[in-house]
Amino acid sequence: MVSCAITLLSKPLPSHPQNKYINMNIRTIDWKNNKIRIIDQTKLPLRLVYIDIGRLKDLWQAIKIMQVRGAPALGAAAALGMYLGIKDYVGSDWKKFNRKLNRVAKYIESSRPTARNLFWGIERIRAVALANQKQPISKIKRVILAEAQLIMRQDMAACRKIGVYGAKLLKNNSRVLTICNAGILATIDYGTALGVVYSAKLQGKKIKVFSCETRPLLQGARLSTWELHKQGIDVTMIADNTAAKLMRDGQVDAVITGADRIAANGDAANKIGTFNLAVLARYHKIPFYIAAPQSTFDLNIKDRGGIKIEMRQAAEVNSILFKKAVAPKKSGVLNPAFDITPAQLITGIITERGIIRRLNPQNIRKTLKEG
Amino acid sequence: MVSCAITLLSKPLPSHPQNKYINMNIRTIDWKNNKIRIIDQTKLPLRLVYIDIGRLKDLWQAIKIMQVRGAPALGAAAALGMYLGIKDYVGSDWKKFNRKLNRVAKYIESSRPTARNLFWGIERIRAVALANQKQPISKIKRVILAEAQLIMRQDMAACRKIGVYGAKLLKNNSRVLTICNAGILATIDYGTALGVVYSAKLQGKKIKVFSCETRPLLQGARLSTWELHKQGIDVTMIADNTAAKLMRDGQVDAVITGADRIAANGDAANKIGTFNLAVLARYHKIPFYIAAPQSTFDLNIKDRGGIKIEMRQAAEVNSILFKKAVAPKKSGVLNPAFDITPAQLITGIITERGIIRRLNPQNIRKTLKEG
Repeated sequence: MVSCAITLLSKPLPSHPQNKYINMNIRTIDWKNNKIRIIDQTKLPLRLVYIDIGRLKDLWQAIKIMQVRGAPALGAAAALGMYLGIKDYVGSDWKKFNRKLNRVAKYIESSRPTARNLFWGIERIRAVALANQKQPISKIKRVILAEAQLIMRQDMAACRKIGVYGAKLLKNNSRVLTICNAGILATIDYGTALGVVYSAKLQGKKIKVFSCETRPLLQGARLSTWELHKQGIDVTMIADNTAAKLMRDGQVDAVITGADRIAANGDAANKIGTFNLAVLARYHKIPFYIAAPQSTFDLNIKDRGGIKIEMRQAAEVNSILFKKAVAPKKSGVLNPAFDITPAQLITGIITERGIIRRLNPQNIRKTLKEG
Repeated sequence: MVSCAITLLSKPLPSHPQNKYINMNIRTIDWKNNKIRIIDQTKLPLRLVYIDIGRLKDLWQAIKIMQVRGAPALGAAAALGMYLGIKDYVGSDWKKFNRKLNRVAKYIESSRPTARNLFWGIERIRAVALANQKQPISKIKRVILAEAQLIMRQDMAACRKIGVYGAKLLKNNSRVLTICNAGILATIDYGTALGVVYSAKLQGKKIKVFSCETRPLLQGARLSTWELHKQGIDVTMIADNTAAKLMRDGQVDAVITGADRIAANGDAANKIGTFNLAVLARYHKIPFYIAAPQSTFDLNIKDRGGIKIEMRQAAEVNSILFKKAVAPKKSGVLNPAFDITPAQLITGIITERGIIRRLNPQNIRKTLKEG
């Protein structure tokens, strides 16, 4: 798996030169000074605050209360968390070290159940440790950190590829409706669904984004409008309830969202409300796309039946956690939480290995292997 | 129009004896001590505060900021507002008095454009004034106040009839999904969509209500859960985004909402998000009902094209107006603004004159005349 991943990274990035490296000036998650540095997303959009996490239990909490969130970012967080959990391990016995590794894995996995990438990040670390079990523990530790850092670099590359593939779907002056945040803040630094918008912009296209505010935690309002505005994209936020009217009024050319876990048949779990948009898009004959890296696919799960949906606390809905503004004042406004969107409502899934259009287990496996 | 309305009121209320008079112990709007007494709905659910309005400009403001809202309640507010606007008129000339009446009407009409009942309430008052133009001004004033009070009594009767008709649609243990507030707080004292639930309960049926929180102003969270809980109904609030998942999970037997204005063909304007629910209900093969009195119908408007949709300020969406709890703590939670629902998505409209099932201009006119 490691070598495969390295191969992926070593491939040149597709099409235009800017995509070789785009500096977004925002880094959602990083490894700095022996700690995990994240943007505290609960503070946005009012304040851009970075926090350094040196203890595993603080990372667990940061994931739980969603200071760091978004499936790809959670993959990196989990992998870095594995390193955080074993970096101070004293001992030289592989079996004991491996048991420690298992405990750390179980602990991280207990934070949030739905995003596939979190489990995938842990699996990557465990696989690389296992492959190096004959090495001294100090060496295994270094390999684990290197793997976590590789995961971050690969995500940066994968998002840019998703962006380039997805941007082909958008004409100049397209209007895109999205929900939650599948942008810079959901990944390492570029985004999946919003990465498509950033890539289209780089290609010289003018794109307008409608951002569903995304109750209950308002990631669309707080995070997507914030980062889109910062990147110079024309963004208008709406109450989630306004989506149908907006479509009916002919204001939406495409719906693009991220995903937290995609089953073998294409059924896709994503922020609550995504399924609503898919049904509304179908009714209005508007294409509905999911943008997600390979690491979000869970080919061991046949369909929606196998996806565990996280239930969160009532207080997120029956009380308002934020006392002041929840979106940048400069963003336009038009004043009007996971569910699973069945594969038949998804026009296509944009991955770093290409766009999967006719969703079925065969096509999905084929694209993910061949890409 | 006046005599017709009196006829309606003098008819016995249908079926079971409790419906003769149900004391809900809450009165949304009333005429007390020469002032309009309303519940300040912006203070709910934290505090039940009544305010007395003696000046027309204060009523205009109360309607604008939605201290009083809900189409039927706005019908009464507008009618009482007409009296408030002329009660201190000094003079004896009908023409001058009528001009004053016109100015008052225009002023009230400028508060909010969508709810049909507001305009209808004004029309009722103007009609009764016109019919009494040969009378002394003092007498016309008394007739106007009497008409406004009649409008309130008629609404109380109409809601109970809607309740009884609608309750037939609900079996024991039915689960109803609703949006915004079409309850006690949207009418004089009983509700339309929620009146159906109250009537079903009176018939001994156990009904569970899922209340969409209804962003941006959270009437579902603040008002519907409050009054349903107070009336002993099992209510669970959800983020609006959760509706599709709830339907998919087989948790919804019927969707019932109110309406703000219904065109001659059955196209129905209601709180933003209603149309979303109608599309989702159709996709999941769940019946979608509108409950509304005759006064909400605007037969002069052919279809959705003629309905003006109010656009409200950005601050309602990009900032949170409420700093603390937005729903009663005791209400269950499952933690997951107007639009127009096209007639073809509406299973039926429950009126005080019966349920209109096959929605077309002929059927609608027939039911409203014959009822």
